[in-house]
Amino acid sequence: MNEQPLEGVTVLDLGQIYNGPYCGYLLAMSGARVIKIESPRGETLRGADLKSGEGYPFCMLNGNKEAITLNLKSKQGQDLLKGLVTKADVLLENYAPGTMSKYGVGSDELTKINPKLIYAAATGFGQQGPHADYRAMDVTVQAMSGVVAITGHEGEPPLKSGPALCDILGGVHLYSAIVTALFRAARTGKGAVLDVAMQDSVIPTLCSALGAYYRFGEDPPRTGNHHQARAIAPYNIYPTGDGHVAIICIRDGHWRKLVHAMGRLELLSDERFKDSRTRSTHMEITDGIVTDWTTSLTTQEVFEICQKHEVICAPVQSLSDVLNDPHLIARGALQQLHHPALGDLMIPSTPLRFSDVKPPEAALPRSLGEDNNSVYGELLDLKPEEVSELRESEAI
Amino acid sequence: MNEQPLEGVTVLDLGQIYNGPYCGYLLAMSGARVIKIESPRGETLRGADLKSGEGYPFCMLNGNKEAITLNLKSKQGQDLLKGLVTKADVLLENYAPGTMSKYGVGSDELTKINPKLIYAAATGFGQQGPHADYRAMDVTVQAMSGVVAITGHEGEPPLKSGPALCDILGGVHLYSAIVTALFRAARTGKGAVLDVAMQDSVIPTLCSALGAYYRFGEDPPRTGNHHQARAIAPYNIYPTGDGHVAIICIRDGHWRKLVHAMGRLELLSDERFKDSRTRSTHMEITDGIVTDWTTSLTTQEVFEICQKHEVICAPVQSLSDVLNDPHLIARGALQQLHHPALGDLMIPSTPLRFSDVKPPEAALPRSLGEDNNSVYGELLDLKPEEVSELRESEAI
Repeated sequence: MNEQPLEGVTVLDLGQIYNGPYCGYLLAMSGARVIKIESPRGETLRGADLKSGEGYPFCMLNGNKEAITLNLKSKQGQDLLKGLVTKADVLLENYAPGTMSKYGVGSDELTKINPKLIYAAATGFGQQGPHADYRAMDVTVQAMSGVVAITGHEGEPPLKSGPALCDILGGVHLYSAIVTALFRAARTGKGAVLDVAMQDSVIPTLCSALGAYYRFGEDPPRTGNHHQARAIAPYNIYPTGDGHVAIICIRDGHWRKLVHAMGRLELLSDERFKDSRTRSTHMEITDGIVTDWTTSLTTQEVFEICQKHEVICAPVQSLSDVLNDPHLIARGALQQLHHPALGDLMIPSTPLRFSDVKPPEAALPRSLGEDNNSVYGELLDLKPEEVSELRESEAI
Repeated sequence: MNEQPLEGVTVLDLGQIYNGPYCGYLLAMSGARVIKIESPRGETLRGADLKSGEGYPFCMLNGNKEAITLNLKSKQGQDLLKGLVTKADVLLENYAPGTMSKYGVGSDELTKINPKLIYAAATGFGQQGPHADYRAMDVTVQAMSGVVAITGHEGEPPLKSGPALCDILGGVHLYSAIVTALFRAARTGKGAVLDVAMQDSVIPTLCSALGAYYRFGEDPPRTGNHHQARAIAPYNIYPTGDGHVAIICIRDGHWRKLVHAMGRLELLSDERFKDSRTRSTHMEITDGIVTDWTTSLTTQEVFEICQKHEVICAPVQSLSDVLNDPHLIARGALQQLHHPALGDLMIPSTPLRFSDVKPPEAALPRSLGEDNNSVYGELLDLKPEEVSELRESEAI
């Protein structure tokens, strides 16, 4: 097996909650050495988890990282960070804009100390612009980005999307920017200062909705489980005898396949269903026909018949279905770990698959400051007693 | 200004619809030379757009790419692709698994021709595993990945998320994998075969939902606009006099700030609201207090008062609000273009921002096959008359 693609790259990961840590996790799973730097009280998510006993999200995003503490508010802590920066290729953080500068360790200061440094900042709305200082969490970025406005049913209030898409999209775009800068550095030796905003990262997901907007020349109504422009039918989540399935007919050929799957060949000559436009015009009747069929069967039966007839269909999987998904487990996309307090957990591996490299096995996060002695010893030549002193003075 | 970070990298982009093309767009906006390869009838999205007159999504994802045609089903077309591969660093595609091999131009064949090639494939469920052949569109991947199950209200049917998050997450993870491989190639000269599944790319967005799952030991009910584990309050989309706002209080300090913002200081000594746990227990009363306040004001008023008091809040922006967002426009995150048929369009730029590089200006897509003469001429030394012959024989 080959070496990991980012082998030899050292990353200081000051990420917190989901956005920054997901980026750090991708870096670690590509083989970078990722040193997670937390305040002496633990980063926000570790702290929240310890308190609530939740714990899973922190485990999911922080495996395969070394864990050290460092107090950014202390002068000694700031000096330690400056020292670490001389040994690192990348620093990533997702504090509010200006936080790192306030402590004298912003991109200006740190790139002076190490001009080859890649300083990567993730925020809700970016480092500059009239909204740069807006406080951002996944749900508020969803609101600002149009995601909430386009989710839910017509005539009902807007709805957030269940997944934390803004955080994760922000994190993987930050990873993208960092690796792009690493590639440039490999050729030019140049460092970089990177600015990735969650809001920018989410806008591309509006593609269908903006298509509908430009088509109608105004904000389209919410469409529930239908196509954003109601231009495709069938396109819906249909109830079955014991659950739900998604079925979508992109082209008229898909409809003909579905008609065969349902055994309703008489529909093929019915003018109301001859193309996507006429089926959309008769959306209720079209959906009614499909629903009559799906409710007469189990989810598994609908799915199998659709697969056989090459109809695009999928069961609506619950979280427990996903965690037990035989495909994800066979691919190693989900790996089981045992947590001493939380029991067995399924942890996602990296989505970045190389045919000739096996990513590191998923691992539990290290405990708070577990690698203080080894990291400060190796990178800054500090002796264990010096590390202890730093801990006592609350610099780490 | 510096050169673009991916300057000198040549990409063959066989992407279609959203997933592959978004990856190609990010590559183009990082300065790679991206040659979009379409069938002589145009890739699916261009075709759909031409037919429906929609057009926006294709414009959004295909600017700054050269456009050539090539018929994968023809022997001559396959030979042309093999020729182009000798001049390229990267080939990306998001066909169903096995499609490229069926035409004799799969990763095995092409990496034999150019061992340094980075062959990057994006699919719904990956190249291998029991579900690899499942047909995938954004909504079916949402269904298979748990996204549909966790969106919507308790006691109501499951709901898809409005944004096309699976396609875009798949696309940016594909970009991540490609640039990671480019970095490795810059150091080792090695090519790579990459396998990125939309489903794998979406699982990390379940972090909060899986936290709730592991906390309760079973599938939690859908929670509408509330926190996935109902562990945080206030956390909701609240109606205002003229719209909606998202408000979230992560820590008790945020609640105290909100109390001040609402001018309801008597709540500070009320035991029901003393911490997130008690506020969650009294979720309806807590939400009622906030709603009484938000409905008495306009969205803008609520937002301004919240900003002043450092409460995490955001207006629920409609699509037209987003397209006119002064922040996105000031940052250049949205750029206006004039389309001859569609009129003025706002096109998202790349979310990957380098402080020392200006990304290419957003641009309209080239027309189908517009660069056939120049690309086939430059890369394969074909004369215009040879290109014409290829067109006549339907090889391109």
